[in-house]
Amino acid sequence: MTDFSFTLHATDGQARRGTVTTAHGPVETPAFMPVGTAGTVKAMTPEDVAATGAEIVLGNTYHLMLRPGAERVERLGGLHRFMNWPGPILTDSGGFQVMSLADLRKLTEEGVRFRSHIDGSYHTLSPESSMDIQRRLDADITMAFDECTKYPASREEVESSMELSMRWAARSRAAFVARPGYGLFGIVQGGVHQDLRERSVAALTDIGFEGYAVGGLAVGEGQELMFEVLDYTVPLLPTDKPRYLMGVGKPDDIVGAVERGIDMFDCVLPTRSGRTGQIFTARGPINLKNARHADDPRPLEEDCPCPACANYSRAYMHHLVRAGEMLGPMLATRHNVQFYQRLMAGLRGAIAEGRLAAHAAAFRRTYAMGDIAPL
Amino acid sequence: MTDFSFTLHATDGQARRGTVTTAHGPVETPAFMPVGTAGTVKAMTPEDVAATGAEIVLGNTYHLMLRPGAERVERLGGLHRFMNWPGPILTDSGGFQVMSLADLRKLTEEGVRFRSHIDGSYHTLSPESSMDIQRRLDADITMAFDECTKYPASREEVESSMELSMRWAARSRAAFVARPGYGLFGIVQGGVHQDLRERSVAALTDIGFEGYAVGGLAVGEGQELMFEVLDYTVPLLPTDKPRYLMGVGKPDDIVGAVERGIDMFDCVLPTRSGRTGQIFTARGPINLKNARHADDPRPLEEDCPCPACANYSRAYMHHLVRAGEMLGPMLATRHNVQFYQRLMAGLRGAIAEGRLAAHAAAFRRTYAMGDIAPL
Repeated sequence: MTDFSFTLHATDGQARRGTVTTAHGPVETPAFMPVGTAGTVKAMTPEDVAATGAEIVLGNTYHLMLRPGAERVERLGGLHRFMNWPGPILTDSGGFQVMSLADLRKLTEEGVRFRSHIDGSYHTLSPESSMDIQRRLDADITMAFDECTKYPASREEVESSMELSMRWAARSRAAFVARPGYGLFGIVQGGVHQDLRERSVAALTDIGFEGYAVGGLAVGEGQELMFEVLDYTVPLLPTDKPRYLMGVGKPDDIVGAVERGIDMFDCVLPTRSGRTGQIFTARGPINLKNARHADDPRPLEEDCPCPACANYSRAYMHHLVRAGEMLGPMLATRHNVQFYQRLMAGLRGAIAEGRLAAHAAAFRRTYAMGDIAPL
Repeated sequence: MTDFSFTLHATDGQARRGTVTTAHGPVETPAFMPVGTAGTVKAMTPEDVAATGAEIVLGNTYHLMLRPGAERVERLGGLHRFMNWPGPILTDSGGFQVMSLADLRKLTEEGVRFRSHIDGSYHTLSPESSMDIQRRLDADITMAFDECTKYPASREEVESSMELSMRWAARSRAAFVARPGYGLFGIVQGGVHQDLRERSVAALTDIGFEGYAVGGLAVGEGQELMFEVLDYTVPLLPTDKPRYLMGVGKPDDIVGAVERGIDMFDCVLPTRSGRTGQIFTARGPINLKNARHADDPRPLEEDCPCPACANYSRAYMHHLVRAGEMLGPMLATRHNVQFYQRLMAGLRGAIAEGRLAAHAAAFRRTYAMGDIAPL
């Protein structure tokens, strides 16, 4: 078995071109991970997910522990086999969802007791149980259990929340069962306070992880503030470990974060948007429901290799979305995930060739242009 | 261009093995046509539909005339191009849906005036407008415009409805624009009355069509009565034209109708059932929502080549359906359409080899056995 590792191939400014090696294969970085919350990237087959170029998907501990249950997934051979995704999987710790989805949460030093939003049953998540669940799911990358700090929050709230997360990070490290090719990532907290972020990084690097995530961003603080946090946080992280910006984001968020040294991303945006007819293109997002697409024989994007663009007109896609046909979300999601993977491939190529600044500037210029109306 | 034709390869009792040749390719019969109501076989890509072995799909005039509109589909290159289905397409006439879906219908000798169930707009369907719409959609097989007789109905109601449909059949024939490889099918009506069915067949064969459909069945009369109608109706139909039993049906309905000389079928059952977690198997239908599947590592069917059976456990399929994940309907529909196509392939092989009686008996015996519980 290969060890879990990060290989740095090239840098361009703060940006990095690397490879994360896991038990279930390599991940070329910078990488975007499609979100497969409940053991499926919504509206896509895993074959289709792989066809976009995606090498790793994300699963949600909170959802999977409640349904179908981690023990069941384990009995059925783990999440890879269960969902037919033979490649790497990262699972979150459940910390974010338990605060955003569960009912009647009770937070203590020990962990979080909550009621399932599905059936009202009682459960507890702690660093130890989160590690146990993620091990049963067979995640290549396990995330430390942390508290999702609310935003906005007072400095005192952010500080005590970060400190709790750091104690939980140590307990996560202790409870994590090391296996070759499997890694545990710590999560930097501290909100938008530089000194708290610095203390959080110091605490995590003291413990030592196979990778470092930046958490608590993309929660409403805005891109400018997010980039500011990355500007002072990312340079503190070890250069020989992957860096993961959780829950980010819009295409221009990703480009800016890659420029600031982030290696991994996840976000529901391409999949969720696909289900509502929001389409990502190099000229910015378009809304398929808009009547201007009703007679447009052009594809969503002229040069996109995805099946939606290869085989269908905007007029047809518009029709599917208007008619509420399931093929609409299927094709739109397929395109959006392809768009994100093409975005990442472009960034990887640009970093490798030392032309990221020009590439990013061209991306931003085109993305801001807006869609061209049909002739 | 090839002419529209029907070639009879073999018979076995009343059953027939043939080929319908159309402008967009051949259809081996007996054939099942997946229903693509609004220009999409719900929850499937056309590539997936073709991969099941389906050679022809059905489109609905009523739905497509209202959204996206027949003129629009025509401008965009016709239904084949619009929905990326290069093979043969049959469109119904709109007669059935206008009676079951539209609001404020007003039926006259001229046709049916109605309000759209989508936006309340007013429309008229007549033999002439139905032919025009189906031509614009570019249907390989156009269905004559008929009145869908309600069931149950008095003999007098059935008789006058049938007579109206026969007058509309003559007007459909007159309005249909002949093109090489395109055909018009007449629809036999007459409810469960032998003499009315006989008069309807006589009226239609006098007019002359490229194929003959049996309409007004599978509307609640039950399998026994349906087979009885087929027993006395089908032998009256020309042997050199295809015979299409509209809206049928359950797998055992299809087997019995093939034994009675029917060549073509359509039904929403495999697709609609797939969306609710009802799965067809050789041992009868199963309900994926049932808790007994929650830990079952077996596929839906051991010997099925579909992606759902090749790649996933019943436990996973159960999870998807319970969790309301779109991949559940996608995979379940894929399997069900595959099941129907395997059913038809089995019937075609059995007729060709003169062993239909034994094949049908074995099918019925196994289908009635019920699903085997997991060990």
